[in-house]
Amino acid sequence: MREAFHEQLDTVFDDLAGICKLVEEAVAGATEALLTGDAELAERVISADVAIDRAREKVEDQAFSLLSLQQPVAGDLRTIIAALRMVSELERMGDLSVHVAKIARLRVPNVAVPEEIRPTISRMAEVAEDMVSRVSQIITGRDVEAAIALGRDDEEMDQLRRTSFVELLADDWSHGVEAAVDIALLGRYYERIADHAVSVANRIVFVVTGTNPRSVDAAGA
Amino acid sequence: MREAFHEQLDTVFDDLAGICKLVEEAVAGATEALLTGDAELAERVISADVAIDRAREKVEDQAFSLLSLQQPVAGDLRTIIAALRMVSELERMGDLSVHVAKIARLRVPNVAVPEEIRPTISRMAEVAEDMVSRVSQIITGRDVEAAIALGRDDEEMDQLRRTSFVELLADDWSHGVEAAVDIALLGRYYERIADHAVSVANRIVFVVTGTNPRSVDAAGA
Repeated sequence: MREAFHEQLDTVFDDLAGICKLVEEAVAGATEALLTGDAELAERVISADVAIDRAREKVEDQAFSLLSLQQPVAGDLRTIIAALRMVSELERMGDLSVHVAKIARLRVPNVAVPEEIRPTISRMAEVAEDMVSRVSQIITGRDVEAAIALGRDDEEMDQLRRTSFVELLADDWSHGVEAAVDIALLGRYYERIADHAVSVANRIVFVVTGTNPRSVDAAGA
Repeated sequence: MREAFHEQLDTVFDDLAGICKLVEEAVAGATEALLTGDAELAERVISADVAIDRAREKVEDQAFSLLSLQQPVAGDLRTIIAALRMVSELERMGDLSVHVAKIARLRVPNVAVPEEIRPTISRMAEVAEDMVSRVSQIITGRDVEAAIALGRDDEEMDQLRRTSFVELLADDWSHGVEAAVDIALLGRYYERIADHAVSVANRIVFVVTGTNPRSVDAAGA
């Protein structure tokens, strides 16, 4: 019975890693659509989100079934609750990618990101994508060291967000209010993707070690 | 045993309603600080958030204890899981109020919201505060009708957000990029508070009726 339980729990974690892969594709696709003004790709990212929602429902059903039928306690109980939280956060990361894709779509045939701020936004997108990709491996390998390292990379994201504000509030900003608002919101979306990635990684630390890293929530600053 | 269980569950819901009251105060305080440029009040909202975080931990501990010791199934299990989700969302609403307070603090001695866009932002804040206040009553009274009505009010918030974009992207916007970026982010924060309020209300519908309203997540548009 206990063995069946842990096999089913492994399936839940495999599914979480699979959702994380879908999120990684969503972040990458939304970013490419954003930087190239590709309406069709933006549309694909937006439509693909339903697959993430369905996969979340499947994980939730599995988790409820494990809770109901196996009545886990202590560590096993906390692991299932952590899985439920992780799947909510992964779904939210998918939603945030959709927000990026929607800004891309709104500005077609133009590109929402002016050339001079492109390095900052591209780097934010790269950091976010890299973090999501690592979270997928962290889930699969229950990799505590990699999870702790991920928290440190979140600092680069915060720094990039500050840089983006300096750039768009500079006296020589010549792209007007609309582009500035797009950049501010895009920065918020990428920052939130990174926050959630850290939160999911922290939950893996908790699942493996039974203790929380300093800040386990995606609350962010 | 079952009776003790339901008494403890009632305590959890009382605590959720109590957290909702703290969130209501946070939204109201952050808004007043924002509209008056009151640094001290902004500071108080920011410091008070720790009480929401602690209250969340208490609810989580109670929920875990109920899950471990009482091994609930079916509806009772789903109710506790719903409570865990509600408390996360309420905490997040507190964090979003802190974000509003931080924008207020950043602009002191000025006021972040220019006079001409004040009606729109004030109304957003009013709608958010009213929704949070009703959620508290919805939790206490397990009020399904009021919960369903809340979802409809979220439409006013979406409309206000669109209005704010029209205003700040108008040709005669004279307050520059910084104010526009503040307004865009403030709109996002109030909108998310409203999304979470709807989500918490929907979870009450689920707890009482056993079925989900059309969209139970704070995913938002």
